Amino acid sequence: MGVMRIGHINIRVLNMEEALRHYEYVVGMKVVHTDQQGNKYLKCWDEWDKYSVILTEAEEAGLVHVAYKVENDSDLDTLKKRIEDYGISTELLPSDSMPFVGRMLKFNLPSGHEMRLYAEKEQVGTDVGSLNPDPWPDDIRGAGAHWLDHCLLMCEMDPEKGVNKVEESTKFVMEVLEFKLAEQVMVGLEGNIQAATWLFRTTTPHDLAFVAGPRMGLHHFAFFLDGWHDILKAADVMGKTKTKIDVAPTRHGITRGETIYFFDPSGNRNETFAGLGYLAQPDRPLVTWTEENLWRGIFFHSGEESGSFTTAYT
Amino acid sequence: MGVMRIGHINIRVLNMEEALRHYEYVVGMKVVHTDQQGNKYLKCWDEWDKYSVILTEAEEAGLVHVAYKVENDSDLDTLKKRIEDYGISTELLPSDSMPFVGRMLKFNLPSGHEMRLYAEKEQVGTDVGSLNPDPWPDDIRGAGAHWLDHCLLMCEMDPEKGVNKVEESTKFVMEVLEFKLAEQVMVGLEGNIQAATWLFRTTTPHDLAFVAGPRMGLHHFAFFLDGWHDILKAADVMGKTKTKIDVAPTRHGITRGETIYFFDPSGNRNETFAGLGYLAQPDRPLVTWTEENLWRGIFFHSGEESGSFTTAYT
Amino acid sequence: MGVMRIGHINIRVLNMEEALRHYEYVVGMKVVHTDQQGNKYLKCWDEWDKYSVILTEAEEAGLVHVAYKVENDSDLDTLKKRIEDYGISTELLPSDSMPFVGRMLKFNLPSGHEMRLYAEKEQVGTDVGSLNPDPWPDDIRGAGAHWLDHCLLMCEMDPEKGVNKVEESTKFVMEVLEFKLAEQVMVGLEGNIQAATWLFRTTTPHDLAFVAGPRMGLHHFAFFLDGWHDILKAADVMGKTKTKIDVAPTRHGITRGETIYFFDPSGNRNETFAGLGYLAQPDRPLVTWTEENLWRGIFFHSGEESGSFTTAYT
Amino acid sequence: MGVMRIGHINIRVLNMEEALRHYEYVVGMKVVHTDQQGNKYLKCWDEWDKYSVILTEAEEAGLVHVAYKVENDSDLDTLKKRIEDYGISTELLPSDSMPFVGRMLKFNLPSGHEMRLYAEKEQVGTDVGSLNPDPWPDDIRGAGAHWLDHCLLMCEMDPEKGVNKVEESTKFVMEVLEFKLAEQVMVGLEGNIQAATWLFRTTTPHDLAFVAGPRMGLHHFAFFLDGWHDILKAADVMGKTKTKIDVAPTRHGITRGETIYFFDPSGNRNETFAGLGYLAQPDRPLVTWTEENLWRGIFFHSGEESGSFTTAYT
Repeated sequence: MGVMRIGHINIRVLNMEEALRHYEYVVGMKVVHTDQQGNKYLKCWDEWDKYSVILTEAEEAGLVHVAYKVENDSDLDTLKKRIEDYGISTELLPSDSMPFVGRMLKFNLPSGHEMRLYAEKEQVGTDVGSLNPDPWPDDIRGAGAHWLDHCLLMCEMDPEKGVNKVEESTKFVMEVLEFKLAEQVMVGLEGNIQAATWLFRTTTPHDLAFVAGPRMGLHHFAFFLDGWHDILKAADVMGKTKTKIDVAPTRHGITRGETIYFFDPSGNRNETFAGLGYLAQPDRPLVTWTEENLWRGIFFHSGEESGSFTTAYT
Repeated sequence: MGVMRIGHINIRVLNMEEALRHYEYVVGMKVVHTDQQGNKYLKCWDEWDKYSVILTEAEEAGLVHVAYKVENDSDLDTLKKRIEDYGISTELLPSDSMPFVGRMLKFNLPSGHEMRLYAEKEQVGTDVGSLNPDPWPDDIRGAGAHWLDHCLLMCEMDPEKGVNKVEESTKFVMEVLEFKLAEQVMVGLEGNIQAATWLFRTTTPHDLAFVAGPRMGLHHFAFFLDGWHDILKAADVMGKTKTKIDVAPTRHGITRGETIYFFDPSGNRNETFAGLGYLAQPDRPLVTWTEENLWRGIFFHSGEESGSFTTAYT
Repeated sequence: MGVMRIGHINIRVLNMEEALRHYEYVVGMKVVHTDQQGNKYLKCWDEWDKYSVILTEAEEAGLVHVAYKVENDSDLDTLKKRIEDYGISTELLPSDSMPFVGRMLKFNLPSGHEMRLYAEKEQVGTDVGSLNPDPWPDDIRGAGAHWLDHCLLMCEMDPEKGVNKVEESTKFVMEVLEFKLAEQVMVGLEGNIQAATWLFRTTTPHDLAFVAGPRMGLHHFAFFLDGWHDILKAADVMGKTKTKIDVAPTRHGITRGETIYFFDPSGNRNETFAGLGYLAQPDRPLVTWTEENLWRGIFFHSGEESGSFTTAYT
Repeated sequence: MGVMRIGHINIRVLNMEEALRHYEYVVGMKVVHTDQQGNKYLKCWDEWDKYSVILTEAEEAGLVHVAYKVENDSDLDTLKKRIEDYGISTELLPSDSMPFVGRMLKFNLPSGHEMRLYAEKEQVGTDVGSLNPDPWPDDIRGAGAHWLDHCLLMCEMDPEKGVNKVEESTKFVMEVLEFKLAEQVMVGLEGNIQAATWLFRTTTPHDLAFVAGPRMGLHHFAFFLDGWHDILKAADVMGKTKTKIDVAPTRHGITRGETIYFFDPSGNRNETFAGLGYLAQPDRPLVTWTEENLWRGIFFHSGEESGSFTTAYT
């Protein structure tokens, strides 16, 4: 089967204490491990693997790497060959190069972002267990994020120079990692420049997305919530904790998701993304957004650029 | 008992056809009457009186008058005396000076806005009737507004000149019309300038509100929705109809209401306001917002000025 | 003004420890006082008066008394006279006959239920305070009930004997306490027997209700929740705590309220009631439910008798 | 990849006119085709294939067949071989043996239910299209079902005779059709009898489920809704249309789904199922429900048998 879903994201934060307060009491995760370098590993209540976010203290915010989980260990060998055949070099990290994780296949996407694949991570179960489970645990905190849902990677695009890392990265993950394309934004005079893409391996609208920008960066990573009411609760939590909100509760036209964009104290953009939106399927017609409807696609209600979508990223 | 609730609002619109499209298909009202001057009278499905919004075509947008309904016809005589004793002149308009309405007591608030009181308006019943009624009718349109809920009047304030029409109007409606004060914003170095007030006669958080500004104007008038999910639907309707949104779905700190600010095609600001918020009562402690928390009070999630709250009004 | 709203309810419970667990961790109240007899006084987070539920340990469950708060102390004298003129004897209890409460006017409704009126109770403020308040506190527990909302009193009715305590009690509270009638159920061959009534003093659909039964009793008392999503959360809490549910989440046709009926461990029926429903007003057309639509009125979705509505009461 | 999702269900109804009124105005589908035998083909607004429900008038209600869509035409050959190797005979129906559908592989599950697989059905697109789509269409009717979501097949189980068609069917669809098991109910003294199973191919909690009963039958088939608020709307629609409800709005412990069980006029049980619940994944720990928690699993709120879950099926 290959890639199943996003597995974890490793990000840089400027101040660990502030970052922890954010991911624990706003997002609602729990610290499950601290390594010798002081990196903190956190887990959402509805995830069964050991962790999904790793915080690394650094001088600058941003992405260290994003990792996707594959179904079988042998998928790593198959994909290693495919990726290298595609012309991208890889490195196979041994087991325990990261805590609680089996061997990892490391490489860079055409956009330059470091991606890793792995098949094994210690399973600790969700916080409600798997025997006669309650629908949610008693000790939910903050927004009560269910799981790490997806990330949006900012890719360099400069049509004049013929550079479009969105298109290149999209082509790569489709051909090699067998992601399917759910939606795309096409811009330019002839509408033939692929400026943003949303891709899936699960049957939710996106597990990975790419958007054009002036340089490689992390636009945001997102946590799943059940629905619109949980978005209100999450926004209330952000108001109560004076969390910096980028774009208040709204709906994406693209994916139909209900959303809040907000920042961690280091300036990494987070999202709470709610609802299934629709059932992503290989045979579902590809949805295309044109340049003049771009902002309607991104923020459906206002149809206008809001917050710092195109200007803030790490 | 005196004043019961807001009864109707008469506003000026620049283009009747566009205005009707907005109030019918976005807000979800129905036209129930057209008078000889071409004014249009509209009603929400959950109102039992004949109409609550009157549209008057004009060169400039804004408020003509706002009317509140009193319980008994004799209240008009009592209140006429009280208002005049307070030093404000009144005029008693005969029955049918407005279609379907009994005699009306007309006067200007200290802020200068024209207010009218009346006891009688033709009752046509809600759209679900009063015999074994369904909770909602089959033919709901647009946002499906339940009823006209309140208005926020912009009042001149200039502390240097000692002008504060917010305070004056608040004092008047409290002392003479027996409105109760639910919440207030206090600004200035000593926090003793009453810059905005929310007042009630029903036991919802506000039936009338005043906010300081550079001149007399209409800040917005609001329609009631059940709750946060109806706010999403309303915002979706606005997205679908490309209605100009001022502030996307959020929560007010003040009143706790869930809200969207948006504009009719003439630039009159509308609001969809959802939820009871809390039970307003004469003995509920007055809620005060300080200057440094002002924007948290207005837009609780971001805690920041958004849209054109202080710059656009009619 | 007279009666403002329901102030508190004193009920009998069979086991105090179990009762506390229920009202604290399912309903979400806090114990604020224990008197020398061991009675427990509890408060909801959104109430500003000291308490709203008093638990008295006893051999049998049921109502001790229900109390409504009036606006002014002098209302007690006015109402004492009116009640006695109506032919009902009263007793004026001195201040502190109940903890933290001023003098109380005690009498029995025509149905036999003990009602009390009072004007003063120690004000402690809501849990979010009144200076720049958050919309909700951090330490919400269980269903997070906002406030005690209303009670439904079971009144003896036997048409063959010409006994109808619903009608008698309704007439009394309308004529003497100036409650307004929002809705009624009319039964019998000619539809002229008033078998249930919903009455208001606030502008929510009901602050007090009567329903016919074989004897005097307490049908239920209700706590307010914001809306339908809070009903889901409350029902989840009941599932997690194995609370005995009478009728699962549904909508009342009468009042439009979203609801769960459930029992405390002593068998007293509680309700979580959500949403404003509609704006109750003196001039709103009286809603009438006919006998053949009675169950549609009570449980709108199924339109059928569910749970133990007509068989369980205390 | 093999099986993608449920494709359509063909059911028998007693009266076509009544059935259409139900599926069109309660469920919210549209008729897209009528064949020469008078069978009616219906589609939900958010489906892109031509139809998902086929109504066949008959003397008795129940299932004719259920069909799942596979990704590639060649999957039919692969699966034909696998199914026959497993010992189940198959029949390959030519293209257009059903309107708008390519060749179909027909066989019976071990439980006896007729299942079909197909790779091709005419694509007509969702009602919002795939170019700058709105999140929902203007002409939503009734409950506004998004898509046919899953079915629950009743399988003969008689432990004394050693008959357990739940287990047999589960084993077959897992081994041959590569469904994954999300949840199971284990009963019997030793908890080793698999009495119900929930299986997925998409990453939603179930695309197919089996439950034990006295004979082969159709327990229900379900339509997807976004969330809990849509459940309220759907239940309101059922109340307004006097649709027979089996179990009012509640939550399943199993799958966490928010639900209403109701009947079409012929007695076929329908479900509106809302929410993603959780992300089903091959490596998610299998959830097991024990016999004493069975009803908590089915109806999480009450934890008790409700409606006619074990007695009504077609």
